[in-house]
Amino acid sequence: MNKPSIPKGTRDFGPEEMAKRNYIFQTIRDVYALYGFSCIETPSMETLATLMGKYGEEGDRLLFKILDSGDFLSKMDREKLADMPSVTFAAKACEKGLRYDLTVPFARYVVMHRNEISFPFKRYQIQPVWRADRPQKGRYREFYQCDADIIGSDSLLNEVELLCIIDEVYRRFKIPVKILLNNRKILSGIAEAVGCADKIVDITVAIDKLDKIGLDKVFDELRGKGFTDEELSKLKPLLLIQGSNREKLSALKEQLACSEIGLKGVEELTFILDRLEHMHLQTELVLDISLARGLSYYTGAIVEVKATTVEMGSITGGGRYDNLTGIFGVDGLSGVGISFGADRIFDVLNQLDLFPEEVKTNTQILFVNFGEEFSDYVLGVMKKLRSEGIRCSYYTDTAKMKKQMSYANAMQIPYVALIGEDECRESMITIKNMHSGNQKTLPADQISRFMAGLIED
Amino acid sequence: MNKPSIPKGTRDFGPEEMAKRNYIFQTIRDVYALYGFSCIETPSMETLATLMGKYGEEGDRLLFKILDSGDFLSKMDREKLADMPSVTFAAKACEKGLRYDLTVPFARYVVMHRNEISFPFKRYQIQPVWRADRPQKGRYREFYQCDADIIGSDSLLNEVELLCIIDEVYRRFKIPVKILLNNRKILSGIAEAVGCADKIVDITVAIDKLDKIGLDKVFDELRGKGFTDEELSKLKPLLLIQGSNREKLSALKEQLACSEIGLKGVEELTFILDRLEHMHLQTELVLDISLARGLSYYTGAIVEVKATTVEMGSITGGGRYDNLTGIFGVDGLSGVGISFGADRIFDVLNQLDLFPEEVKTNTQILFVNFGEEFSDYVLGVMKKLRSEGIRCSYYTDTAKMKKQMSYANAMQIPYVALIGEDECRESMITIKNMHSGNQKTLPADQISRFMAGLIED
Repeated sequence: MNKPSIPKGTRDFGPEEMAKRNYIFQTIRDVYALYGFSCIETPSMETLATLMGKYGEEGDRLLFKILDSGDFLSKMDREKLADMPSVTFAAKACEKGLRYDLTVPFARYVVMHRNEISFPFKRYQIQPVWRADRPQKGRYREFYQCDADIIGSDSLLNEVELLCIIDEVYRRFKIPVKILLNNRKILSGIAEAVGCADKIVDITVAIDKLDKIGLDKVFDELRGKGFTDEELSKLKPLLLIQGSNREKLSALKEQLACSEIGLKGVEELTFILDRLEHMHLQTELVLDISLARGLSYYTGAIVEVKATTVEMGSITGGGRYDNLTGIFGVDGLSGVGISFGADRIFDVLNQLDLFPEEVKTNTQILFVNFGEEFSDYVLGVMKKLRSEGIRCSYYTDTAKMKKQMSYANAMQIPYVALIGEDECRESMITIKNMHSGNQKTLPADQISRFMAGLIED
Repeated sequence: MNKPSIPKGTRDFGPEEMAKRNYIFQTIRDVYALYGFSCIETPSMETLATLMGKYGEEGDRLLFKILDSGDFLSKMDREKLADMPSVTFAAKACEKGLRYDLTVPFARYVVMHRNEISFPFKRYQIQPVWRADRPQKGRYREFYQCDADIIGSDSLLNEVELLCIIDEVYRRFKIPVKILLNNRKILSGIAEAVGCADKIVDITVAIDKLDKIGLDKVFDELRGKGFTDEELSKLKPLLLIQGSNREKLSALKEQLACSEIGLKGVEELTFILDRLEHMHLQTELVLDISLARGLSYYTGAIVEVKATTVEMGSITGGGRYDNLTGIFGVDGLSGVGISFGADRIFDVLNQLDLFPEEVKTNTQILFVNFGEEFSDYVLGVMKKLRSEGIRCSYYTDTAKMKKQMSYANAMQIPYVALIGEDECRESMITIKNMHSGNQKTLPADQISRFMAGLIED
């Protein structure tokens, strides 16, 4: 028999990893709920009609497609099979695929349920997505996204609330981060100011690299794309804008005076910063005009979060999109959303050793098994403790004491309970702290007080 | 543009459904954790080598298979495609499938990770599974399973603990249920006592229907399968056993005296009932020798739960299996597990109107928007309330009061906060109970006390 394996790019999550992952999901979930977002879930499979063409050519290729059930070949023209390209075949043999992100399914959900939904609709969604990417370090074929979106409101207060959510989530995680903020309209304004509104993609792609490669190389790249020296000389002062967020905004206001859309972007960011001034975020917020975040569907504010003390890409991102449901034939719904990258947050928390100690504790007390004659007593004690919320486990096999203690250690169970004849007769429990080695004999009904720290160890 | 849709047999879950579903998952999760089980997760996709042949022919057919990425046709002999059966093609074009249950992936997990695992290993797993079944009422192509298993221990204390878990979960749900209990060894004993140990499948399948079709028709069916009158006359007294669990066990002990395995089954159930006698379960436990639960891999105790006040199939099931990991080449690990059927529990809770009121409340307070000039004050108040754990939402658009109130009603938000000039100037909040219509103006810092019920409505 071959050794079993799992598909490449996928992962098993054991008890400790899952405890940590659930801490991440629960933290994000709690904050989303505090801000008035409701949880929804959509099916793992969507029709390929829903998925195809929404993520560009690359995305179509990376969709996992599910073979139709039954005798799917019988519907095909067998003779054509001999020289049919794989991609044509896939389109004929598959009508479903695994979701690629949570945004397109959400747009599909909103369109299908628009008559039941009260707008503005604030939903969060924490589910896995699948991409047939080449697996590599930190990139998986199945991973979770944690999205929150507000759809059906163009108020900038939504952007303000989402930035508060980001601040609160990272305050809870204790991860030092900075929030980078920009506005797609400012990028459009820059393109207009340079006189190349039609080349916004080239400009954005190039200045996105400003941080990494510097001004000179950005200009080399733009020259390669046909930008003239005159255009570049108009661009230069925009890229050199420095100072506080307020200073940057006032410089942009001046330099984009000729661009209506650019000024609109400045106005939007000013509104957001004005509101946040009163909110006393603990996270630094940096206006960064080189922030681009792709161009696919964002139309207003865009945001990205970076950990400041760990080398890691963006750990949260989001932005405003004005017409996401348009792809499904319903126009006029503006939305804004954010997405936390759970896998990267996991790595950051691990690297900074920020997972709370209690997260790693699954079971709190292991009851050692000294023989069947004590099991009724142990079961009764455990029932009581569990009713008080204490997570306990019974070593159900009779094994040597040493083996049972090793088990408690391997499972990182902090306390073991020892129950023999004396304890059983006198309704006592001997409880041992596996960390310090201290041991104490207490009346059974005192154990929950002991576990709560009310009786000294 | 075509209207978007979702694949048949799949579902979208909106805010209210998800709140209810999460209540179900969280309740089960909490109890599993109290009993010392750790959460694990496995990938949605498994290799077809892992999945195929584990669920019978029917199961193989019902697996969702995922088309390999890239140019999969290029690896095939094109000429053979013209008359290749679909199933052969699928085996060549797909190396992955969606998991069909949580048990086989768990066995695969245990085998792959056996060197890191401390046995006995107590894990729970709450994840979706997929089956290409014909969709029908109450049967879906994607649904959640909520499994807990102990592997690597043959102690019957594990059965006892699992029965306590079932009792506790339904106590929390407040669903009146009865637990049906049997033992595969008793079924083997019956077959031996009748003199047809080799026909255990026929016997079990037939007596499984005893409840529904009655003794005569069960016998008709068995005659059709070639059972003699003599054999049936030996079976009859076994099927007529009545009385309390203890009485049934003692009758079985007598009638199965000739069958070693049958007596072993009686002994096992006696042990379990002895332990449970001290545990004072609130659920009725019924020894039911007609309970079969398939025959695939169970080897000891089997259990099934039925709601007593609603017409519904089994809502929880489980049992002991002695060699699950044997399918992956690792023998000698005995396991026992249970699985809660979340979808059916959902229907039962709905029919009996047992979902707690607070489950349906996502957001607790909606802040009405009376204009931009108040937004800084509102945002500040909400920040404070959220830090105290109160879930609140701001109606971010300026809309007519009536529209905002309808929104609160549609979203089932129990309180709205009204903040105008007076409130803003005096740091007050007017809070309205949407149910009673009562309205009260309070200092902003009193709202959390009000929400906690410490100030009269």
